[in-house]
Amino acid sequence: MKKSLLALAALGMIAGAAQAQTAVTVYGQIDIGVVKVKDKTTAIGRGDNNKLGFRGTEDLGGGLTALFQLEMRFEPDTGTTESAPNRPLFQGQSRVGLKGDFGTVRLGRGLSAAQEVMGNYEPWSFAGNRANLVAYSTAGFNGDPFVTGSSQNRFSNGFFYTSPTVSGFTGGFSIATKEAIGNGTPFDHPISLSASYNNGPFSGAINYERNGLETKFWNMAASYMITPEFKLMGSYATQKITRNITAPYAVLPAGVDVKTDAYLLGGQFAIGSTGQILAGYGHSNTKTVGTSTKTRQFSFGYEHNLSKRTFLYTDFSNSRVKAPNGTSTTTHMFDMGINHRF
Amino acid sequence: MKKSLLALAALGMIAGAAQAQTAVTVYGQIDIGVVKVKDKTTAIGRGDNNKLGFRGTEDLGGGLTALFQLEMRFEPDTGTTESAPNRPLFQGQSRVGLKGDFGTVRLGRGLSAAQEVMGNYEPWSFAGNRANLVAYSTAGFNGDPFVTGSSQNRFSNGFFYTSPTVSGFTGGFSIATKEAIGNGTPFDHPISLSASYNNGPFSGAINYERNGLETKFWNMAASYMITPEFKLMGSYATQKITRNITAPYAVLPAGVDVKTDAYLLGGQFAIGSTGQILAGYGHSNTKTVGTSTKTRQFSFGYEHNLSKRTFLYTDFSNSRVKAPNGTSTTTHMFDMGINHRF
Amino acid sequence: MKKSLLALAALGMIAGAAQAQTAVTVYGQIDIGVVKVKDKTTAIGRGDNNKLGFRGTEDLGGGLTALFQLEMRFEPDTGTTESAPNRPLFQGQSRVGLKGDFGTVRLGRGLSAAQEVMGNYEPWSFAGNRANLVAYSTAGFNGDPFVTGSSQNRFSNGFFYTSPTVSGFTGGFSIATKEAIGNGTPFDHPISLSASYNNGPFSGAINYERNGLETKFWNMAASYMITPEFKLMGSYATQKITRNITAPYAVLPAGVDVKTDAYLLGGQFAIGSTGQILAGYGHSNTKTVGTSTKTRQFSFGYEHNLSKRTFLYTDFSNSRVKAPNGTSTTTHMFDMGINHRF
Repeated sequence: MKKSLLALAALGMIAGAAQAQTAVTVYGQIDIGVVKVKDKTTAIGRGDNNKLGFRGTEDLGGGLTALFQLEMRFEPDTGTTESAPNRPLFQGQSRVGLKGDFGTVRLGRGLSAAQEVMGNYEPWSFAGNRANLVAYSTAGFNGDPFVTGSSQNRFSNGFFYTSPTVSGFTGGFSIATKEAIGNGTPFDHPISLSASYNNGPFSGAINYERNGLETKFWNMAASYMITPEFKLMGSYATQKITRNITAPYAVLPAGVDVKTDAYLLGGQFAIGSTGQILAGYGHSNTKTVGTSTKTRQFSFGYEHNLSKRTFLYTDFSNSRVKAPNGTSTTTHMFDMGINHRF
Repeated sequence: MKKSLLALAALGMIAGAAQAQTAVTVYGQIDIGVVKVKDKTTAIGRGDNNKLGFRGTEDLGGGLTALFQLEMRFEPDTGTTESAPNRPLFQGQSRVGLKGDFGTVRLGRGLSAAQEVMGNYEPWSFAGNRANLVAYSTAGFNGDPFVTGSSQNRFSNGFFYTSPTVSGFTGGFSIATKEAIGNGTPFDHPISLSASYNNGPFSGAINYERNGLETKFWNMAASYMITPEFKLMGSYATQKITRNITAPYAVLPAGVDVKTDAYLLGGQFAIGSTGQILAGYGHSNTKTVGTSTKTRQFSFGYEHNLSKRTFLYTDFSNSRVKAPNGTSTTTHMFDMGINHRF
Repeated sequence: MKKSLLALAALGMIAGAAQAQTAVTVYGQIDIGVVKVKDKTTAIGRGDNNKLGFRGTEDLGGGLTALFQLEMRFEPDTGTTESAPNRPLFQGQSRVGLKGDFGTVRLGRGLSAAQEVMGNYEPWSFAGNRANLVAYSTAGFNGDPFVTGSSQNRFSNGFFYTSPTVSGFTGGFSIATKEAIGNGTPFDHPISLSASYNNGPFSGAINYERNGLETKFWNMAASYMITPEFKLMGSYATQKITRNITAPYAVLPAGVDVKTDAYLLGGQFAIGSTGQILAGYGHSNTKTVGTSTKTRQFSFGYEHNLSKRTFLYTDFSNSRVKAPNGTSTTTHMFDMGINHRF
């Protein structure tokens, strides 16, 4: 009895310390590997995003929760911030908001509604450098086309709403102010919309986004768990760059549009309790003034789980670009690396 | 009994982990809102400072404590560091020091003695972007006038002393080396002095600071808790820029001084247990070579507490600048936002 | 019994929270002091490196451990990142890896194998700004000579292997890709090798490194605990810059080499349980085309421990450079400061 009292006393002390700290969780991910791209020197770099984040929630009572999240991104091979100096310290996100019966509202910078959902329908979950299939999900959409190396899938100065999930349906809506994006000022509010549905083995989503300049895109995606081991997924996306605006945004001659159609087919196949095969095939077609540029790519990957937080991986991709004049350029990529979440 | 032993065993393991972590507290604040300034586009931005900090103390025995504090500042709307790239990563502070019977001594970078005290006498506690009354507390003093966007209220390369509190009196003294401030080298040591007195409902302070170049200012401030709900506060400040130095610092013609007098009146009024009204009025008069520029501003705010750590706010300000030629320019600002401490 | 059950229940909750957090340890070091160098203004700056780091391990079972470490460096006197803007955010290191019976393998950026060992044989443990003896350990070797202010002792894009310790012997091997170092591309893989031996009072190491450009160095070092209070140490190093490459790396005329020989003698002497005297003497000789530049330096320091994590220090150094024409330049440095680990 004495011991259990002692335990309680010690517990009280620890509970106090722990309570003060539950407010902030330090989390992150390091993903680094060796990459060999055809005709390039063997390099070390990130496969998936590398994160160091700080997040927390506070129970406000009455079903209301305050939440915040700050997420740095970095290049693990050189120790710089992600794509330094083009991207901000908290490239991942810097948002604060409230969650309740009405859903979740957040203010700040982060993934747009569409981009937050679309990764679920790409076999590598948008670990872009490993399979390079992201562009087939987005039809090459770029949320900030006027700054080299800027983020293409995030809103700064944004308001983000995610609905509660009702009968499997979830909606997302993001809107940003007309403040400058990079070195350009949007003509209109950047807007992103997402509607998704999850029911047992089936999942599907429709997404729309415009960058407030001249570009918008649509995406439709679905996935199905055929067996507990095998998930099949696919998406169709179309992007349109409309050239009806004046300098300095006139990247295209007046009256000229660029339209890209892309689709992606992929799957994830679990092998035993520790292995997973990833596969994907993407195809895109970009048309402007009677010309057409076609690309297609297939990618394969294998992940070996050392634990729930750590896995080793290897990937192989082959891609081909067919230029308007009919010439084809083929390249391939091989990588192997380690991914650790903390 | 077996269970309580098990509890103790598990406890030991946890206690060890917890002890190693009590050394560092991760803390911060996110404050973000929607702002509409007259004739400008609606924007999202910070109201108060946004912080991510790391601090800790170590009991050295004999009444002595070692302490450190590292505080990043950032823009929550875009995820960059505060006023990037003008300010350092640890814009908030980077200091280490000792605390004992003699008071607290710290080395590094942080708020000067005067600036650490003066926020107590401004209704918004120097949450500058919300009410914009800070300049009326400081008479427009700028601690580093030669770098655009640099910090105006901090010493780098500083030694900071805070006395113990005796009979309600506390003194503060900061001095910086003559190393470069921004791109300029001070002629003399930047120095900051503060003497404050706190006794029940009354609080008062006298502050002095010079930036080591040509500028110095005085500030006198006081506050009084009229009722448990209502705190009244006011300050008077005077700044003098003396033009007796040579290029490259000769921003004024030889022999010309600029003198600014400013005062501020304000109050905080609690409404029930969750609301608070803030109000302030500021007036300043800048004189040089027989001319005079007068500004005045009133600001109102309301804060609604969702918890001790989270509140929603809205503010309204109206300011007028009367130029030497008699013409007046009026502007106003409206904002609403959320502030969350963690 | 009820209480101990309650304890267990509460424990479960806390254990969950604690377990999620043991993954990440936030740690660091602040070292700041006042420095007076002959003919320069008194300055405040770092003595040792200043760190804010995040590290963790995960037990993968079967003797295998995953590990990561992210370490920011900063200037505590101004709050910027270390040597901003020349160095990355995670200047200290950004590495992930696995540890097992085979040793430790890591990928990313960090100290090379040689540099990780050599600090053990320098009295100040490479706290460079305090004694400035580091160059005598490395014979002036610079791992990235083409970027001003870049890191000289680290590999980016590196693979790092540390062997298990067998009969006192430990080996280290680092290799980097041929990706660009700073603004230059190496001709060959940067490589670093280390072999060290620890047995009771004796410790010794042989180290080799080349930067993949035109420079390589060797270092031999040893230390001996003469008494439990007194540790003696010394090292010999030689660097050779071979000029057999083409522009843009041709910093030397064709056919010209530069060779530097350096040695270092030092000791650490404990005084009671709280004090420690450090002393060192370094000598180097740089020869090229028949000319010779000789430098020598002696340094003394005293550290007073306030705890295991906090100490005060003071140092004095005197150095002399003898130019090829025979003229000597002497300078000296005095500092005092505080070092706090968290």
